[in-house]
Amino acid sequence: MKREVYLDNNATTRMADEVYEAMMPCLQKFYGNPSSVHALGREAASRLEKARGQVAQLLDCCSEEIYFTSTASESNNWAIGGVLSTAKKNHVITSRVEHPSVQGPMNFWEKQGFRVTRLGVNEKGLLDLDELEKALSSQTALVSLMYANNETGVLFPIEKIGDLVKKSGALFHVDAVQVVGKIPLSLKNSSIDLLSFSGHKFHGPKGIGGLFLRQDTRLNSMIRGGHQEFGRRAGTEALPQIVGLGAAASLAQRRMLRYAEVGELRDDFERSVLEEIPQSLRVGHEKNRLATTTHLSFAKIEGAVLLHSLSKAGIYVSSGAACSSGSLDPSPTLMAMGLDPEYLSGALRFSLSLDTTKEDMEYAKNHLFALVKKFRLLGEIC
Amino acid sequence: MKREVYLDNNATTRMADEVYEAMMPCLQKFYGNPSSVHALGREAASRLEKARGQVAQLLDCCSEEIYFTSTASESNNWAIGGVLSTAKKNHVITSRVEHPSVQGPMNFWEKQGFRVTRLGVNEKGLLDLDELEKALSSQTALVSLMYANNETGVLFPIEKIGDLVKKSGALFHVDAVQVVGKIPLSLKNSSIDLLSFSGHKFHGPKGIGGLFLRQDTRLNSMIRGGHQEFGRRAGTEALPQIVGLGAAASLAQRRMLRYAEVGELRDDFERSVLEEIPQSLRVGHEKNRLATTTHLSFAKIEGAVLLHSLSKAGIYVSSGAACSSGSLDPSPTLMAMGLDPEYLSGALRFSLSLDTTKEDMEYAKNHLFALVKKFRLLGEIC
Repeated sequence: MKREVYLDNNATTRMADEVYEAMMPCLQKFYGNPSSVHALGREAASRLEKARGQVAQLLDCCSEEIYFTSTASESNNWAIGGVLSTAKKNHVITSRVEHPSVQGPMNFWEKQGFRVTRLGVNEKGLLDLDELEKALSSQTALVSLMYANNETGVLFPIEKIGDLVKKSGALFHVDAVQVVGKIPLSLKNSSIDLLSFSGHKFHGPKGIGGLFLRQDTRLNSMIRGGHQEFGRRAGTEALPQIVGLGAAASLAQRRMLRYAEVGELRDDFERSVLEEIPQSLRVGHEKNRLATTTHLSFAKIEGAVLLHSLSKAGIYVSSGAACSSGSLDPSPTLMAMGLDPEYLSGALRFSLSLDTTKEDMEYAKNHLFALVKKFRLLGEIC
Repeated sequence: MKREVYLDNNATTRMADEVYEAMMPCLQKFYGNPSSVHALGREAASRLEKARGQVAQLLDCCSEEIYFTSTASESNNWAIGGVLSTAKKNHVITSRVEHPSVQGPMNFWEKQGFRVTRLGVNEKGLLDLDELEKALSSQTALVSLMYANNETGVLFPIEKIGDLVKKSGALFHVDAVQVVGKIPLSLKNSSIDLLSFSGHKFHGPKGIGGLFLRQDTRLNSMIRGGHQEFGRRAGTEALPQIVGLGAAASLAQRRMLRYAEVGELRDDFERSVLEEIPQSLRVGHEKNRLATTTHLSFAKIEGAVLLHSLSKAGIYVSSGAACSSGSLDPSPTLMAMGLDPEYLSGALRFSLSLDTTKEDMEYAKNHLFALVKKFRLLGEIC
């Protein structure tokens, strides 16, 4: 059997066995509608609330502050639209390296008359907090920034940012899709008002996301109708996926310390690549980063071709954010970081998970070395 | 083991074995992100498009006209908001007996300045088409009506309505949640522009819905960001649920004729109940109805108490739409039908499925007879 090495975990992860086992009974056995008042419905409702509690425990907040959605894209759209559509102020702050599901709504609300400040990043992918401080005013309704970048893994200093935002009186939304389940969070005592996350990014099911909404925060609904999710998000609850997300949250809490080992695997891989492959570079800050992500670029290499050849060898990586990977345009994140044009097209993201082994990384490294060498040689001949 | 008779299929159905089996490989084996361009991603994308084709076949339309959503509530909100937010006209028509996920957005858009006409129904739950014709004008942007009522199963004459709507130049949205998979539909040659449906109402998975959108119909996005769903609904696709919905669609096509047998079970049950229980009545038109639904009411009975006692005997029914069943207010649908107040609180919905057997209905009938008798006797004594 061909070896498969999955290094595209920032796009999606493999569901953990514990999650699978938690979901199974909810598919055909406990299939009631949580809104039904008979015994089968009440059983479903009780499993729903147990899962909400598991997620709340992971995020260290109240159960009543957790709203289930279908995806983090929905959560981001809801957070931004839900705040801005009820805001009395007309200014919003975000960055140039946000996920499309933040940039999309920002572009929309800009057309509705909001003034949008898009903060830049430096070549390491870091924000200038002075720039943020200058942009904040009494007219700022919302600041929406990501916790960790999906392409580079670079972490923004969310606590420091939160302090600045709170001083201005704005609401603070954090897209924490790449962080939840990987870094300990305590929302109870944070400055975060809204936080988006998704199950499938930390070994939970696809088709389930969530939004943390601090109590007493004003937010318009996006999906209106039934009383589900405290009357704020209508629709029959996706019980199997919700229960799976709850199980993923509990599992993540138990396994979180193990990300240090993932970081070592990542560092070893990155060090070898940068040492062995000439004209290669790391994209993003070396230290302020998720343990799971390394974004590397190789001059004189077509990333898409390299990705394809790696895939043939059973090694699955990404040439940018999965969400825009159909397109061949250079990544807006790499553009915002001012990456040397020579390195723009040869950038690949390797994203690890708790399932990744030392052998996986050895296998990936050997193939990568050989392929980069081969393609550069071909480039010289042709 | 206690016998369980599930008669709440309008709230949700049990997932079919074929659906379960189709989903399983997508949980842990083919777990790639359909947006990823490596082999695992392409495998996911191909399964996604196969499922879209299966749904399109059930509805007899093009694959490109099928958009996956998280629930029919989302589909309804999207259809209504997506049309009205881009409309140049300011009038919309709906009915008084729609699902909350249609009524909710209608109330919202009314506050945004739209004029909303809410058509009434007669005591059988039927629309007056003359009233519709009078309400339609060149200012009508959208008509949104349900195919079958979730509480009574009463069918609206969608074809005739469609003809009237088309003459006026308005768009026609149909909430077909209770109908898809149960009645043959051919959208290709219909007057329907948008149609909502949901997987879990016809033995598919929870957490997956869909919207049919006729090609070249203008519709604003609700979830913005990534390029998924033809750039109209961002977010990583819920592949296992989508594949399950595809399998449910294929299965429904094969089994659709069997609903005639379900109708016979329903008719036999209904006949016995109305004959045997004094002061009982059928809610809704006898003929123009889904085969799966009977809504019955018993004078001098508290529906919630009867429901609870039936549940104790393992018989699961609903005392109104599941979506509002937490509340004790009388159902707006029954109110709109002008149901005799004596019968308002004693109404129960029995909704069958292809899984329902003759023995199930016998068991339910015997318990129902005994319980109604007992409660009425108790009522007289107290």
